[in-house]
Order: sequence, then C-alpha cells, then structure tokens
Amino acid sequence: MRRLKCVVAYDGTDFSGFQVQPDQVTVQGEIEAALQRITGEEIQISGSGRTDAGVHARGQVIHFDTASHIPLEKWGFVLNNQLPDAIVIRSVEEVEPTFHARFDVQVKEYRYCIDNRPVADVFRHRYADHIRFPLDVEAMQRAARHLVGEHDFTSFCSAKTYVEDKVRTVYGLTVERTGDEVWVTCRGNGFLYNMVRIIVGTLVEVGQGKRQADELMDILAACDRERAGKTAPAKGLTMWEVVY
Amino acid sequence: MRRLKCVVAYDGTDFSGFQVQPDQVTVQGEIEAALQRITGEEIQISGSGRTDAGVHARGQVIHFDTASHIPLEKWGFVLNNQLPDAIVIRSVEEVEPTFHARFDVQVKEYRYCIDNRPVADVFRHRYADHIRFPLDVEAMQRAARHLVGEHDFTSFCSAKTYVEDKVRTVYGLTVERTGDEVWVTCRGNGFLYNMVRIIVGTLVEVGQGKRQADELMDILAACDRERAGKTAPAKGLTMWEVVY
Repeated sequence: MRRLKCVVAYDGTDFSGFQVQPDQVTVQGEIEAALQRITGEEIQISGSGRTDAGVHARGQVIHFDTASHIPLEKWGFVLNNQLPDAIVIRSVEEVEPTFHARFDVQVKEYRYCIDNRPVADVFRHRYADHIRFPLDVEAMQRAARHLVGEHDFTSFCSAKTYVEDKVRTVYGLTVERTGDEVWVTCRGNGFLYNMVRIIVGTLVEVGQGKRQADELMDILAACDRERAGKTAPAKGLTMWEVVY
Repeated sequence: MRRLKCVVAYDGTDFSGFQVQPDQVTVQGEIEAALQRITGEEIQISGSGRTDAGVHARGQVIHFDTASHIPLEKWGFVLNNQLPDAIVIRSVEEVEPTFHARFDVQVKEYRYCIDNRPVADVFRHRYADHIRFPLDVEAMQRAARHLVGEHDFTSFCSAKTYVEDKVRTVYGLTVERTGDEVWVTCRGNGFLYNMVRIIVGTLVEVGQGKRQADELMDILAACDRERAGKTAPAKGLTMWEVVY
C-alpha cells in the first residue's frame, strides 16, 4: 500500500459539492468511481475540506491509499482519462503514510471573483458573480483590514454551524481590481461554514456604499450572523491553494 | 415599428445551437421567448448566421422589429434580465429598416482556442479543446498561409453541405500562441458548414507533425472532404465578430 496526494481542480457548477452524498453527483464520488475503475479497489479519498455546491477548486488536495502498481508519473494521465472534463488532477505525488489531507492543513487560500463589467462577460458566468455597478475597491480594502488576525468569526458563519470554537485566524484578506474583475483573496488557518462567502458579501455591501468600512469592527464584535451582509453566491468562489 | 440590432455573446455549451428547433433549447429560442415576455409581441429574430451546438459567440449579431416603446438605452438591461446567464446582450442600437443581420455581413471572424497545457485548465474546459502535446505553431502558420485568398473550399466543408457554390474568400488565417493557449483566427466573407472546424482540425494535424504544411495546397486542390483533417470539436470555436 502507498499513500498518494493529488492536487485537484474542478468546475463546481454542475456538482452537488465536493463530499459524497447519496444520489448526487459529487466531486468525491466521481474521483472514487474513477479510482475503482482503474484499480478495482474500493478507495475512499480524503479531501482538505468540503466545498459547497457550485464552489470551484484550483488547488483542492486529496489523499488516498492504494495497492496499485501504476507508476507515479502515469497516475495523473490515467485518472484524468477516467474523469469528466470538469475535474482535473493537476499533480500526483507519493507521501508518507502519516500525511493527512485534512488534518495537516497549515494554510488555506480562497479567492472570490466579481465580474464588475457593466455588461457581464458570458465566458465568466460560471466562475464570477456579476455586479454591474463599479465597486469602491478602496473602501473594501479598508473594511477588509478589520478582519485580519485572530477573531471569533461567529458573525461571519452560517447560523447552521454547530462547531463550538468559532475563533479562526485570517492571515490575509485583500481586495484587488484586475481589469474589469474584482478579486477578494482570503488566507487563513481554517474557515467556518460559508465564512468566505459571508465576508465577501459584506465587503461587497461596503463597496456598494451600503455600509461603512469601519462597521466591520462592530459586526465582528457582535458575534451575530444577522449583523453581517448577505452570503455571496457560490459560483464566484474558488478554493485556490492548500499549504501543508 | 423600429428595427434593433444587437450584439450577442453566449456560452454555447448547453444549447442545441443558435437556430430554433422544435423541443430543443436554442439561443434563438431563448431570445425570442424573452422578447415575447418583455413586449407581448411574437418577434422573430434574424442572426448573422447559425452556430452549431456547443459553439460560442462573443459577437453574434441579430436584428428584430418591435413596436415596443422601451427606450433604447434600457433594452440591453431589460433583455439580460430575462435571459439565462449563458446569453448576454452586449449592445443594442436602432438601425435602418433595410438593415439585415445576415444579408449585410461583410466580414466574419471566428476564433478557435486550443488549451495546449500538459494538464488541462479546468476553467477553460467548455471554451477550449485540450491538446496536451505542444503544437508546432510555426508549421501551422506556414500551412495556414495556403488557405488565405479566394478558393473552392469543398475539401474543408462537411460532405453534408448542399450549397452549390463552395468558393469563399479567407481574408486572414493566423495561428498564435498566447501563453499556454494556441488561438486560430479566421476572417472571411462567409464560411461553409463546419469550414472553420475542419480548417482547425487540419492545421492541428500539421502542428502535431502528422502532415506537412505544404500538403494544404494539395488538399485544397483535391476538392474532396476526405483529404482534409478531422473536424475540430465545437467547444473551442467562438463567433468572434461580424462586420457590416
């Protein structure tokens, strides 16, 4: 047996999220089915974390154990051949049997893309949320600074979150305009359910002038989901990178 | 009554082509249904030409007549509001009642995108054909030159084409590498059925070293579809611009 680590990219639009669910098409389900066809083994993969329906990945990381003797350098090609076009294995490496894609995560980076053109770019419709009026990126940047650091992010997670400890550390939260797109990049040691999408939804309201940048301090302190902005649509969000 | 001309972009992946067909989801069908909801009129639109299932557009042009009094500057927004995200009206202008989106075309430009990365970019999987081995772009450029000008393109159109006159003028046919993508750009006064996709499929075989660049002369002269290469997949093709 050996343990393999893969970096996986996917277009999440047509999947019911990453995690296997009965009678749903999921990223995990597709990868496990491909592995079974290739190896004949019933392999369960572990991901660095789930992504919701419609959320994409550029650098999701998974691991799995296999007794297969397929040479390491062939794995990527063989897997991609068995996967739908919307899932791509970007790299495969052998790791220590103690490596764990979820438990060993040091830093995760998500990026959110807003198509800020007056008229949407149709070729970005699956990967960006369209907001037609120009966002005040500087105000969004000022607001973002309040969220960097270790905080209780209760206000920025779904009310359906049952984890006890809602303290997380955001290492970086930046807002940049590149051409007609506005990108929000968020790095942290872990994220609560819907946390990045609620942060983005709140920053967007600042960018639209509906809230002041400094309100973010009060929202954070309130520990109340009702105080933050709307949850931004899933389609703009991409799991960008996982660092171990 | 007034005649409106619109520039339309669409992600053709999930449509059965541009032209209305019974029981199929088509671009024309979606636009006509939106127009009916907006105006109450039964409007038939005319496009600059059809696109096949899976082919995209950045600059398809349509025209239609309407008695509606919606101000010109509101039309784009109102229409986009009623259309699925995969179709975007980029601009609307009023034109002379003699303007015709199909009959008045002077030049059409198509672009074909090849994702030439060793491992496919998942975010291009709907808009580019993935070819993992590096293409010889210079050889493709040499081959392309043979097709520029006025020629009988019988070898480069589907055997199912029933038009009599297969002479067309290609004004420009270029092959460029931009980063990891290879783009084929084709401008002409009109194209036969599958013509751009067969040209691209043949150029790709040159780029893969399966054919010599100079073979293109013989293929053209043969007036025989069997002599040219495979029809490149629809998904890489975009109707880029129509000039009147």
